[in-house]
Amino acid sequence: MKLWEKETKVADIVERFTVGRDLEYDIHLAPFDVLGSLAHTEMLASIGLLEADEKETIHRELKAIYKSIEAGEFEMRPDVEDIHSQVEIMLTEKLGDVGKKIHSGRSRNDQVLVDLKLFMRAEIQELVVLTEKLFQRMSGLSEKYQSVLIPGYTHMQVAMPSSFGLWFGAYAEGLVDDLRMLKAAYEIVNKNPLGSGAGFGSSFPLDRKLTTELLGFDGLNYNVVYAMMGRGKAEKSLAMGMSAIAATLGKFSMDVCLYMGQDYGFLTFPDELTTGSSIMPHKKNPDVFELIRGKCNRIQTLPNDIAMVISNLPVGYHREMQLLKELIFPALEDLKQSLYVAEFMLEQIIIKEDLIEQPKYNYLFTVEEVNRLVLSGVPFRDAYKQVGLAVERGEFTPERTVNHTHAGSIGQLNLEEIATEMKSVIAQFNFDKVEKALKSLVGNS
Amino acid sequence: MKLWEKETKVADIVERFTVGRDLEYDIHLAPFDVLGSLAHTEMLASIGLLEADEKETIHRELKAIYKSIEAGEFEMRPDVEDIHSQVEIMLTEKLGDVGKKIHSGRSRNDQVLVDLKLFMRAEIQELVVLTEKLFQRMSGLSEKYQSVLIPGYTHMQVAMPSSFGLWFGAYAEGLVDDLRMLKAAYEIVNKNPLGSGAGFGSSFPLDRKLTTELLGFDGLNYNVVYAMMGRGKAEKSLAMGMSAIAATLGKFSMDVCLYMGQDYGFLTFPDELTTGSSIMPHKKNPDVFELIRGKCNRIQTLPNDIAMVISNLPVGYHREMQLLKELIFPALEDLKQSLYVAEFMLEQIIIKEDLIEQPKYNYLFTVEEVNRLVLSGVPFRDAYKQVGLAVERGEFTPERTVNHTHAGSIGQLNLEEIATEMKSVIAQFNFDKVEKALKSLVGNS
Amino acid sequence: MKLWEKETKVADIVERFTVGRDLEYDIHLAPFDVLGSLAHTEMLASIGLLEADEKETIHRELKAIYKSIEAGEFEMRPDVEDIHSQVEIMLTEKLGDVGKKIHSGRSRNDQVLVDLKLFMRAEIQELVVLTEKLFQRMSGLSEKYQSVLIPGYTHMQVAMPSSFGLWFGAYAEGLVDDLRMLKAAYEIVNKNPLGSGAGFGSSFPLDRKLTTELLGFDGLNYNVVYAMMGRGKAEKSLAMGMSAIAATLGKFSMDVCLYMGQDYGFLTFPDELTTGSSIMPHKKNPDVFELIRGKCNRIQTLPNDIAMVISNLPVGYHREMQLLKELIFPALEDLKQSLYVAEFMLEQIIIKEDLIEQPKYNYLFTVEEVNRLVLSGVPFRDAYKQVGLAVERGEFTPERTVNHTHAGSIGQLNLEEIATEMKSVIAQFNFDKVEKALKSLVGNS
Amino acid sequence: MKLWEKETKVADIVERFTVGRDLEYDIHLAPFDVLGSLAHTEMLASIGLLEADEKETIHRELKAIYKSIEAGEFEMRPDVEDIHSQVEIMLTEKLGDVGKKIHSGRSRNDQVLVDLKLFMRAEIQELVVLTEKLFQRMSGLSEKYQSVLIPGYTHMQVAMPSSFGLWFGAYAEGLVDDLRMLKAAYEIVNKNPLGSGAGFGSSFPLDRKLTTELLGFDGLNYNVVYAMMGRGKAEKSLAMGMSAIAATLGKFSMDVCLYMGQDYGFLTFPDELTTGSSIMPHKKNPDVFELIRGKCNRIQTLPNDIAMVISNLPVGYHREMQLLKELIFPALEDLKQSLYVAEFMLEQIIIKEDLIEQPKYNYLFTVEEVNRLVLSGVPFRDAYKQVGLAVERGEFTPERTVNHTHAGSIGQLNLEEIATEMKSVIAQFNFDKVEKALKSLVGNS
Repeated sequence: MKLWEKETKVADIVERFTVGRDLEYDIHLAPFDVLGSLAHTEMLASIGLLEADEKETIHRELKAIYKSIEAGEFEMRPDVEDIHSQVEIMLTEKLGDVGKKIHSGRSRNDQVLVDLKLFMRAEIQELVVLTEKLFQRMSGLSEKYQSVLIPGYTHMQVAMPSSFGLWFGAYAEGLVDDLRMLKAAYEIVNKNPLGSGAGFGSSFPLDRKLTTELLGFDGLNYNVVYAMMGRGKAEKSLAMGMSAIAATLGKFSMDVCLYMGQDYGFLTFPDELTTGSSIMPHKKNPDVFELIRGKCNRIQTLPNDIAMVISNLPVGYHREMQLLKELIFPALEDLKQSLYVAEFMLEQIIIKEDLIEQPKYNYLFTVEEVNRLVLSGVPFRDAYKQVGLAVERGEFTPERTVNHTHAGSIGQLNLEEIATEMKSVIAQFNFDKVEKALKSLVGNS
Repeated sequence: MKLWEKETKVADIVERFTVGRDLEYDIHLAPFDVLGSLAHTEMLASIGLLEADEKETIHRELKAIYKSIEAGEFEMRPDVEDIHSQVEIMLTEKLGDVGKKIHSGRSRNDQVLVDLKLFMRAEIQELVVLTEKLFQRMSGLSEKYQSVLIPGYTHMQVAMPSSFGLWFGAYAEGLVDDLRMLKAAYEIVNKNPLGSGAGFGSSFPLDRKLTTELLGFDGLNYNVVYAMMGRGKAEKSLAMGMSAIAATLGKFSMDVCLYMGQDYGFLTFPDELTTGSSIMPHKKNPDVFELIRGKCNRIQTLPNDIAMVISNLPVGYHREMQLLKELIFPALEDLKQSLYVAEFMLEQIIIKEDLIEQPKYNYLFTVEEVNRLVLSGVPFRDAYKQVGLAVERGEFTPERTVNHTHAGSIGQLNLEEIATEMKSVIAQFNFDKVEKALKSLVGNS
Repeated sequence: MKLWEKETKVADIVERFTVGRDLEYDIHLAPFDVLGSLAHTEMLASIGLLEADEKETIHRELKAIYKSIEAGEFEMRPDVEDIHSQVEIMLTEKLGDVGKKIHSGRSRNDQVLVDLKLFMRAEIQELVVLTEKLFQRMSGLSEKYQSVLIPGYTHMQVAMPSSFGLWFGAYAEGLVDDLRMLKAAYEIVNKNPLGSGAGFGSSFPLDRKLTTELLGFDGLNYNVVYAMMGRGKAEKSLAMGMSAIAATLGKFSMDVCLYMGQDYGFLTFPDELTTGSSIMPHKKNPDVFELIRGKCNRIQTLPNDIAMVISNLPVGYHREMQLLKELIFPALEDLKQSLYVAEFMLEQIIIKEDLIEQPKYNYLFTVEEVNRLVLSGVPFRDAYKQVGLAVERGEFTPERTVNHTHAGSIGQLNLEEIATEMKSVIAQFNFDKVEKALKSLVGNS
Repeated sequence: MKLWEKETKVADIVERFTVGRDLEYDIHLAPFDVLGSLAHTEMLASIGLLEADEKETIHRELKAIYKSIEAGEFEMRPDVEDIHSQVEIMLTEKLGDVGKKIHSGRSRNDQVLVDLKLFMRAEIQELVVLTEKLFQRMSGLSEKYQSVLIPGYTHMQVAMPSSFGLWFGAYAEGLVDDLRMLKAAYEIVNKNPLGSGAGFGSSFPLDRKLTTELLGFDGLNYNVVYAMMGRGKAEKSLAMGMSAIAATLGKFSMDVCLYMGQDYGFLTFPDELTTGSSIMPHKKNPDVFELIRGKCNRIQTLPNDIAMVISNLPVGYHREMQLLKELIFPALEDLKQSLYVAEFMLEQIIIKEDLIEQPKYNYLFTVEEVNRLVLSGVPFRDAYKQVGLAVERGEFTPERTVNHTHAGSIGQLNLEEIATEMKSVIAQFNFDKVEKALKSLVGNS
């Protein structure tokens, strides 16, 4: 059943094609659709388009639906076109004509938009929480293993001494910057599109600032045409933020897989966290990190995939924007799972502590020697040549101590400063304000 | 001549292949390489690795080189490997052994990194200036043509009344959000990597906070391994910011090309800003906006292109990172030119003022009629059906007036509020601080 | 339950993460897994690794499973890891130890590979059938409307006379070239990887040519390491072929959406094939073609998405290759649906026949006039200038007849030649040989 | 100076923006522009639009220009818009009005198209030649080192014995399949678009089959609208073929870089083919293969980049198609260089012959042991468990011999069969026919 059917019946084949995989994603929008309707009707009442008692009745019903969603009892009927119709039908069945009134001054377009933005805002919050947990874990490991040396590589060649402290700490610090990108996405997402209708506004005297406050948005997409452009742009912005985190996590996973191999042999995990092979009984495969790497690489293509769908479309809504759900929804699930599982795995990581002693790592310490000479007064280029020639003659004997003291080096990881940065970035997301607004919207019956 | 040549001569074919197109981009890094060396040597002196008079001598020479760059007199010798060698050679020729000392406590890796970051920071500033100019132009046009109606489209079908005011204003507001993304890139770029050496720090007691201040950075990439990860990540972050602006400008260009066609006919440009055809004498082709559209679409693939190059590379420097210059440098030029030319074109745009009167736009006003009925008390679904049936019977007669009053609608464009947002976003870039730092670095001889 | 479990139990969280969405795709591989096992066991018997009666027993059971799959009765148990385990378990339950023997000389890796290649080969055949149907439809429309003129556009400006005949015919001819790309993918996919084991072959004296024949492959991936590289490469090659078709269909859909708008107004569809709007009662939205456009644009990113996942992975199997199913399987479904629905829609397309008479299309005929002058002896540049000036003075009066006679022009569409090309390209796919081989494999009990 | 200038002068800023970087690429089209004009004028004479002596005069001059191009003496004037204008101006200056006649029945659009297709066809030939040379080198190395064992990896874990023979041979065989994809591109490129004018044909009675023969094309793009669609589609098809080769070469380069590291240590190169580091005197960096890897990864994004530019553009020429030269031309150069340099490097590769003896590779041989047990009658699952437990108890002692005999395994590389496949694929490119046609076109004065 479709609400917009007039006289003609849309051919079944067209219907199945146009609905596509939408319904499996729409269920995630349910709570946000109710929140949007609560705010919209509150506003309609404030401008006299809904009687106070009508609003009360509608709110009571919407809150009941919201509770059923939270309780996991909400279901979509198979014959209903989308989540918005489902909610509206439930209202109408209970309340009759009054239920129909929630659609005044609103289009399906701005209704979907506000649902999506509320959904993405909530997902961003989850991403931030999970990213911070992984950050904590990595910082902790950086501190714990700060004095365990590993080779540092450039060009995949043994280069200079590094440490597990530096390695874990680098990825931790990377996550701070990644949240900066996610923060920009958050700012773009967290603006109210409600009231933009089908992208051209309404002749009703809507109070868009009121719905902005009620829904805890940071502000509104003023221009109604621009509000509509948010479809696709919000998803792509979020995808960029996700892509930033995914790049860090994916790169880390590549390191883990490489370091777990028998040739590097830097680290491993307990048997129950690795998988075997049907034909090679001795193997401990890092499937989890391979899959994280793969999922994270796939997530990095998201902004491009979205751009390909919406690029060169003239201004205004186009139906294929619906397909962006298929791109963004599973990717969010993948990223959240990857962050969660990575942290879970790292809790049990096993580090090899004495690997630097192997002869193949002798030349790691040449630069240290060059610098020692420089500090004792030899000009740099001469010291450099002297050590180089010693290496060529096979006469270089390494001293395996590293005295790095400057900021960010082996001897001074600056974990506290980095943690402070993380805290400061997270504080810029105003999740408290959002939660307070939503609580007030759902709770005031 | 290569500085790192020891005994063996690298085969010419290898040399030509590895240098590639690098030199044509390196010249853009010249001023930033000098700035980096000024800061580095100031710091070396502060920790006793350079005598005060050595530093003075070196600074005098570096500032002379800086002036020659500003005067456009600086050139790279054809036999020099890169910009960094070129500057070092000039110093050494003038100053002898003292010149060699600027390399102490620094690797080619962190030297390139700091050059690139200073360069990208300066480019971001140019992008912000050009974006703001385009924003102003679009806002001005929005105000000027606020009451000229155009059809609003959904599904590329005539839908509801819109206006040139809304259309221009939408893209103006879009640029505000785009700068949010560029701002995140700026935060990531504007951190000091100097002192990270080849990615593993140094045994010298470098004062990285001092170089951070001297170069006007907002802070430092603490972890030296993370600092090195900035290669590629900084470029990709910038590409995301560029991609955001490009998406808005590209979409606008599609609209312009469509609206200039004879079927829409909404706008045009003076003859001298369009191009003709070798075989169709009457045409006025929007080549400029087609090219902006193409360049902007190409820029939108940049983050993906960069990701493909650096993805799945384990931690540490890899030589192909050099290739990112080929991706990012011309794209910056393209985006700056596109912003500039778009503004230049819009200054002379010619708007068709009475196009809404055409009969093909009659049905634009159905929603207005539905809402009029609702405001007079008819339930929405009934009003909707009533107008729908009138349309089907061919009895719908439009009234071409639009009374939209809510925030962001035809009657209330909120241009001032949007301008305030723009100002607030731009203020978050601390260009003043940067300029002050650099002036002090170059000026204090 | 996992077949490779030894002593330790893999943590549940790891299991859920590694299985992921795999099971929902694996069901599609069921018939191909059985085919692979039929061929493999036939070969094992031929080299004496399976007794003749063991083989008979196994074949009888495998064919029964095959029939249950064809009858839609096959199901995966929720606790089974993948399709391959499911089939093996069914065998073992029925046949005991004999069932276990089908795994000799085979690894999970080459088993999955051969399943995937057989699956993709079958999908390619479906794509070819659907593409040919769309080709026929477009060719038919090209012929039917060969004399109905439309404007031809360059730069989205009215340029020269074109026709529906040319327009439909162009996309039909495009599909011929697209199948050339799909044909290359087919050649790459249609090679036998069975016998490559985990990518390094086997110490059993496998007869790989026999399985190649039995499964109807065109040849084998000789080198076992290369066979393993087929994972990812086969998917990417197929994605390129799909991308070629999608580009043509997506571009066509953009034209349809544009031409259905009120400003162009070239064509439309019956009401029951378009959708309405909840707030604009007069609209007939081309949702189907918008969604085809979107799906086709998304499909065009597939080769890039796959490349991002597998790029920079060193030689050998990596677990994330499993994720490619999530990319390629739904995309195949999308492309097949899009081809099917496009043909279904075009069967009912409504063409506007007299649109060329509109005054806005007057200048379409300038080039015709220039050429008329040239044929009467005026030098080209002079004729060109003369008409150009007539246009500028507003004195150009068009004659709306077009006499194009050369190959591929309005007057000579060459539909037969193009159909011959199509037939010749399709003949290069040897589907008959494949079907014959498979029938013989399943049928000889 | 622009040929299409009428009365108004195009603003300089517009001109500079629209010309862009086009001129630096256009010079590569020079010989092909002359070839196209030779064929076009021959055809014009055949249909009476050019007198026989006019044609002779024009041909004499065009052939002189062709020779000057071959001799490297051809130059573009700085004030000329493009290569086509340059050639036309040279003709006109020498021949006066007759020179102008070559433009009859031709548009700038089909002229550029035919130039590009002839150019791409020639580039494909170069790619095939270079790919075959690399194939030969890799096949030779495969044969030379067929008995040198290396570990085979799955999940980056030591898995089963492999060999340099398998490793080199795998990439060689990969190149065969890559040429299949390039062959599809060749078929799409090698069709004649000449005569399609601006995409809508001509009222002249052009003989398109004649130009098809003269230029050695395999056939023609019949439909003139489709011919025009070739712009972008030809480039994208070529990019897919390039991308296939690049994927193989890029993956190989990753292996080389990994294997050159101190932890693997499988191979190296002479000093003069590696590069040093300014601060780590002992290093031999694989810069060449890192850059090949990077260039090849970048090339793999080309089809996506091109798709982003042309996707969602309605039918007909759009100016930004010019930008595709910036994408495809340097990428062709990069791929050709990479193929050439890879072959050059491999000529001097140094292989470590005894690496398999290291204890870390003991477990490589477990599967061999399992199979040995199976061949002696133990059921597979039992043999598997028995070896697995031996490994767990630390009692597994490897026997480092490998007896693989089946097709494509260590003991039977099938290099001859693979070489035969390569020959057969290359034979499908009809380069001979092309060369003969062009020789006849340029030679018959």
